[in-house]
Amino acid sequence: MGNCIVAQSGGPTVAINASLAGVIEEAASSKQYDIIYGSLNGITGILNDHIINLSEKMDTIPDFLGTLKVTPAMYLGSCRYKMPHMSDDEAIYQQIFDFFEAHDIVSFFYIGGNDSMDTVLQLSLYAKEHNKKVTIMGVPKTVDNDLCHTDHTPGFGSAAKFVATMVKEIAYDTSIYPIESVTIVEVMGRDAGWLTATACLAKTEYGLGPDLIYLPEAAFSTDDFIEDVKKTLKTKSNALIVISEGIRDAEGNYVSASSSAVDSFGHSQLSGAGKTLEYLVGDKLGVKVRSIELNLPQRCAAHIASETDLNESVNLGKTAVKKALSGVTGHMSTITRTGNDPYTVTYDSMDISLIANEVKSVPRNYINESGNYVTSEMVDYLKPLIIGEPKITYKDGLPVFLDLDHLYE
Amino acid sequence: MGNCIVAQSGGPTVAINASLAGVIEEAASSKQYDIIYGSLNGITGILNDHIINLSEKMDTIPDFLGTLKVTPAMYLGSCRYKMPHMSDDEAIYQQIFDFFEAHDIVSFFYIGGNDSMDTVLQLSLYAKEHNKKVTIMGVPKTVDNDLCHTDHTPGFGSAAKFVATMVKEIAYDTSIYPIESVTIVEVMGRDAGWLTATACLAKTEYGLGPDLIYLPEAAFSTDDFIEDVKKTLKTKSNALIVISEGIRDAEGNYVSASSSAVDSFGHSQLSGAGKTLEYLVGDKLGVKVRSIELNLPQRCAAHIASETDLNESVNLGKTAVKKALSGVTGHMSTITRTGNDPYTVTYDSMDISLIANEVKSVPRNYINESGNYVTSEMVDYLKPLIIGEPKITYKDGLPVFLDLDHLYE
Repeated sequence: MGNCIVAQSGGPTVAINASLAGVIEEAASSKQYDIIYGSLNGITGILNDHIINLSEKMDTIPDFLGTLKVTPAMYLGSCRYKMPHMSDDEAIYQQIFDFFEAHDIVSFFYIGGNDSMDTVLQLSLYAKEHNKKVTIMGVPKTVDNDLCHTDHTPGFGSAAKFVATMVKEIAYDTSIYPIESVTIVEVMGRDAGWLTATACLAKTEYGLGPDLIYLPEAAFSTDDFIEDVKKTLKTKSNALIVISEGIRDAEGNYVSASSSAVDSFGHSQLSGAGKTLEYLVGDKLGVKVRSIELNLPQRCAAHIASETDLNESVNLGKTAVKKALSGVTGHMSTITRTGNDPYTVTYDSMDISLIANEVKSVPRNYINESGNYVTSEMVDYLKPLIIGEPKITYKDGLPVFLDLDHLYE
Repeated sequence: MGNCIVAQSGGPTVAINASLAGVIEEAASSKQYDIIYGSLNGITGILNDHIINLSEKMDTIPDFLGTLKVTPAMYLGSCRYKMPHMSDDEAIYQQIFDFFEAHDIVSFFYIGGNDSMDTVLQLSLYAKEHNKKVTIMGVPKTVDNDLCHTDHTPGFGSAAKFVATMVKEIAYDTSIYPIESVTIVEVMGRDAGWLTATACLAKTEYGLGPDLIYLPEAAFSTDDFIEDVKKTLKTKSNALIVISEGIRDAEGNYVSASSSAVDSFGHSQLSGAGKTLEYLVGDKLGVKVRSIELNLPQRCAAHIASETDLNESVNLGKTAVKKALSGVTGHMSTITRTGNDPYTVTYDSMDISLIANEVKSVPRNYINESGNYVTSEMVDYLKPLIIGEPKITYKDGLPVFLDLDHLYE
């Protein structure tokens, strides 16, 4: 009946290739498409005619889908490309649909975050207006977990498992000296605190783990923070604090922005929130203090991926294909939680216009009244998402991933 | 015949509890000791009479030794205590040996790095001089791999596996955009570059992985560095650079110390070497640049421990007990590599006076002539040390470790 093409966009996650594997697996097994193409570097591969034949890859690379599922980042590369509005640059839209026609593309799958979902929205609106028969489907991903109308997003559970595991291990590391110390762990999340909140899963029954957790959704006060730390140090020697990079005061001023400094070369340095609070604690309390920015590993630590996350990501990719084949267009595949004990979910899709450019923040009742920890509602929500360890093949002591040399040809 | 006591000291590693497991297992199976005691927080537990009965723990906690082996940091807690010289404070020595006598201790095992080996040396000299019948044995550990007379140190292989795995995953993460970018990863190692060098293991056959590696053992020049980066960016879009925190120029000035800055609160901020080079690259080359400090996770990421490292750490603990039982004292257990393909080792021990306070640096022939990468000698040396993944039990999605509540009673 024709071909399909899939692309990936936005920041990398551990699970975005699992969604790609789901798209390819379902597209192949449906036998409804002749060739499955991959557009390299997101939508720009379509604009620059830089595509690869994924059907061929699947036939020639041993265990292609199995290895793809556990390979971090984007097998197809990424882009940061914001589609212009139709009325501003219709030529781009014509170029894309000309490409679809030239390559006999009947379905386009775009795996990505908020910006990519906006592209899905714009393309589907154009297709409708110009009566194009191509189905356009979005597949979600983001470690931030801030997309609406889906219980959670692919990539979040694996990032959460990395954060919770590291916070648990850091809790062990920092609790062995009988002298007072404060450790501050900074987690990704400029606007949404979901990923930071996952540190609560590291709390052990006997009290080891994070003592204080601060999210961007609750106003941050440095005075209250110092009091919280003092209070913690009255009950134990080693305080462990986890913060979002985006914590801010009641007026919306980022903590990170309050400490821009100038180094001896005259360069302006903007410290992260963790570094800023590290200096504050040292200054106000005079105790041993250290900050740790978990940084990029949060979104690429495939070796500690959540099996639940990878499996769901595969299923969201498959759902997008099934929906496209049933004629749905302009939707994003979604996940709905139908039970928590045992944890069960169903897959569906939702009109992209209800999702694109919307943000899901942490509800206030998931954060305690003092704004310095999460509630049991949050723990219950997060707990199932990090369950399970995928089977990863190791060679010479390192995890085996697919190579990316097709990106540089 | 009497009891034995074991303690841990210095900075945590992933394998120091594996050595403890080895000591306990061998001490128990030898049936030569009535009770195996643990001194809490290193030698200070002996000074403060803060000890636990490890024989009891082994009998009451299910799979105690198996879980201990994979638990990060110190089950017995740590200390930073430098023994005074005998001539300066003999009372301390008397106090320790009085404790040994009071608890019928015939063997003392100290698992630690350089400072702990100095304690082993001082105690064994005192015992010799005062004709005390207690055997004193050291068991090595350090992620820095800088102890002499042992092919490598426990904890190093696991830290190496974490660094190599993360660098591989970061290489995937940072290679997906077709625009020029520079990523700088800062690895622990103030004086020895061993751990930084392990990033070379992440290099894939098709060129993904670190492009430049700088160790403290080769003089660092910022001019040469900028030229190296420029040259790399001529051949590929995404340059990945791995540096030791302790890189320094020909005069011995640390790169990290050259960028002390003052923030808007008036606090002096000392940036790490990675941050300093991040600003330098941004300034000189104007490309997208990011630095990542791997920080504490390097020494506590038990979830990605090297099985080779853990097994060797157990064996070094066992060797110390066997040697003590055969009458050896004032030694540290050591590992000798007897083959590289296949990799084989033997265990022995060495007079502690030859080890304590000595440092093993990276030999110059393990670094290339330009000082910006390692040689095949280094790759061959490192490769076997990260092999194997230990069986770790997960509960609720997180690795299961022994609890540490005995440290706070």
